[in-house]
Amino acid sequence: MRFLSEKQVREITLKYGTPVYVYSEAVLKQAAESLLAFPNAFGLTVRFAMKACPNRAILQLLAQWGLQIDASSGFEVERAIMAGVAPHTIQLTSQQLTANLLGLVKKGMRFNACSLHQLAEYGRICNNSRWREISLRVNPGLGSGHCQRTNVGGPSSSFGIWKDQIDLAQDSTQRYGLKITRLHTHIGSGSDPEVWVKVAKMSLAIAEQLPDIIVLNLGGGYKVGRIEGEKTTDLQVCGQAVQTAFEEFAAKTGRKLHLEIEPGTYVVAEAGSIVARVIDVVTTKPDPDGYDFIKVDSGMTENLRPSLYGAQHPITIVPQLPDETRKTRNYVVVGHCCESGDILTPAAGNPETVATRELTEARVGDFAVVDFTGAYCAGMPGAGYNSFPAAPEVLIRQGGTLQLIRQRQTLKQLVENEIGLN
Amino acid sequence: MRFLSEKQVREITLKYGTPVYVYSEAVLKQAAESLLAFPNAFGLTVRFAMKACPNRAILQLLAQWGLQIDASSGFEVERAIMAGVAPHTIQLTSQQLTANLLGLVKKGMRFNACSLHQLAEYGRICNNSRWREISLRVNPGLGSGHCQRTNVGGPSSSFGIWKDQIDLAQDSTQRYGLKITRLHTHIGSGSDPEVWVKVAKMSLAIAEQLPDIIVLNLGGGYKVGRIEGEKTTDLQVCGQAVQTAFEEFAAKTGRKLHLEIEPGTYVVAEAGSIVARVIDVVTTKPDPDGYDFIKVDSGMTENLRPSLYGAQHPITIVPQLPDETRKTRNYVVVGHCCESGDILTPAAGNPETVATRELTEARVGDFAVVDFTGAYCAGMPGAGYNSFPAAPEVLIRQGGTLQLIRQRQTLKQLVENEIGLN
Repeated sequence: MRFLSEKQVREITLKYGTPVYVYSEAVLKQAAESLLAFPNAFGLTVRFAMKACPNRAILQLLAQWGLQIDASSGFEVERAIMAGVAPHTIQLTSQQLTANLLGLVKKGMRFNACSLHQLAEYGRICNNSRWREISLRVNPGLGSGHCQRTNVGGPSSSFGIWKDQIDLAQDSTQRYGLKITRLHTHIGSGSDPEVWVKVAKMSLAIAEQLPDIIVLNLGGGYKVGRIEGEKTTDLQVCGQAVQTAFEEFAAKTGRKLHLEIEPGTYVVAEAGSIVARVIDVVTTKPDPDGYDFIKVDSGMTENLRPSLYGAQHPITIVPQLPDETRKTRNYVVVGHCCESGDILTPAAGNPETVATRELTEARVGDFAVVDFTGAYCAGMPGAGYNSFPAAPEVLIRQGGTLQLIRQRQTLKQLVENEIGLN
Repeated sequence: MRFLSEKQVREITLKYGTPVYVYSEAVLKQAAESLLAFPNAFGLTVRFAMKACPNRAILQLLAQWGLQIDASSGFEVERAIMAGVAPHTIQLTSQQLTANLLGLVKKGMRFNACSLHQLAEYGRICNNSRWREISLRVNPGLGSGHCQRTNVGGPSSSFGIWKDQIDLAQDSTQRYGLKITRLHTHIGSGSDPEVWVKVAKMSLAIAEQLPDIIVLNLGGGYKVGRIEGEKTTDLQVCGQAVQTAFEEFAAKTGRKLHLEIEPGTYVVAEAGSIVARVIDVVTTKPDPDGYDFIKVDSGMTENLRPSLYGAQHPITIVPQLPDETRKTRNYVVVGHCCESGDILTPAAGNPETVATRELTEARVGDFAVVDFTGAYCAGMPGAGYNSFPAAPEVLIRQGGTLQLIRQRQTLKQLVENEIGLN
């Protein structure tokens, strides 16, 4: 297990039941520190892409350690402010303009215009010289995947202003008296240093056209290897390459750009685990194509990633009571939803096919710990399907004490907005 | 549009905002009636697989029209009871035993044992001759997909007791004095009458081994064609084939079995639409591989199916004001989440690739109606990602009046269980 001990698993489940999200403050802090140490030439801001894990306590810790916020909706901005995050450390980068744009800008929120429409609306609504400095999100024409594939950059992505439309953006800024001082070019940079350098250079070429730019934001998308064979982005290597590009840009233009990065997964993935209970062990082994299955009281309700992407997460069986004598066996692990796709061990990248894992022999009542589930699990839809209420979230403080940071949802809360016919 | 008029779209959005789920009582009733007319030899029960759309008002209407309930968790059973559904019309078919099993059985809930463990636990917990009659879910060894693919039947499915383990189940029923009077063999029957007959015959062969069986439940999975080229199950054709099989079984064994079916999608898919607003129109067309994009204030938050399965839904652009002069154009339609996979027009069956649709030229402020979204949309996780609160649900009554059946969630509700550190 990444950070839990068997003893902690038993203690936490006794206290909070299953399924439960558990976060490690110590592991979270390590990730935050390695991000804050990202190489840079002329200054660095790390924004946490809060959609990855928007819990109030997590936001509070990260803010305390010096991370700022990348919000993907007006609701996220408000949520961060409710958590006590200083508004001027929050930047909104959204597909959707918030209805409360002026109110949030007045509070200090920074705005990143992601389309020509957003830019014009900002100019129209926030029509005051105090708020004239804005950021522009540009699609630099490069994605981290191949053509036509869903992506956050390149011609098949709707994110940002297309690189050849920057002149239209400039018409708009002139019309509304805006000043583009920040450039944002998130393409989901992955773990290949060459892609990083390529993006940095493309982005710097755009910055060259925009003389007021003082901040370049390269976005996020930095990979975390969850199981053997998956790569983790080497921040030092990638960062060093980017730093050199910034230095060369400064030598050429005399402009020393401040670097921003916006990691989500990299901040929280490793710091979170889901603890579930084994609720059944069944087999279709009488058949030559059969399997042994472990069923747990979790699944797509707590972690949609395997169903959505065929994502791989390490799974550990923890016997209900200490037991040194168990053998291992190959299992398919499935969730508790009446849904054929609710599988914790899909084939890698293929959620429609089952794969097996060698795990400690499991019995009903044991625990199953699913690691590297800090990112895009509690924060991404899941709870509510099959009417399973949302699981609680628990934080293991640096000293080892347990702190409940979200209570288990009740069925009553799940249906509280419904209005019957009689 | 399937049931909305442009006038209704404008009226509903003015009253309830966007995004909003809209259901048609008239279309729902048509589906219910066609299911209640499913051919049968010796009686029929139609159970609504409520996970498809668990809203209280929908459950109330269906119960009033004579449908019973298939619940996939103990929470769903309680939710149906809260809606006023009679407990004896609810059957629990779950991967997970509910903690409140005895309490719900005492209320009258019917139990379908889905594993040897569940069967033994039922026998141990509900140890009373009043509740000795139970149902057994058997995996008949046939799935509606190919081998290894995630499925609700066959060797790669964990659902039900494997067909060759029925003798073990009988040991358990003997030990606990249980009587298996109902058999359940849901494999997701699809739209092919031959598959229906095959499943019916395999199920009847199992029923032949179990002399106390008086009810055979064939489950659900009946397809609804949402766009051109997709097939809708012909209930009369498939049902007729099944009826004949039941009649032959009766002629051979003298046993007249009651038929149960458990549709989810078939009941509600067509009766629901999502109305969203066009929030942006952007292009990457300067690039030869570029696209025109429509962005709407909905997406995976209201409907996960395109992201999960590459599901296809009809989309109609409704101009904000009546406008007869618009041309059409090919668009990619995307949702409002900062997620590359939040696409309303994925390639069919391939959520990782974008496809285009020919739609009325769209402008910001127009509406986009996504049809056939009654099933597995509001009931399946989605809301909450990017902190977008859950959309409201509105029912168009048979007389045409609008009735709010779920209020829009607030951000405050979304975070109400969180506990900050200070």
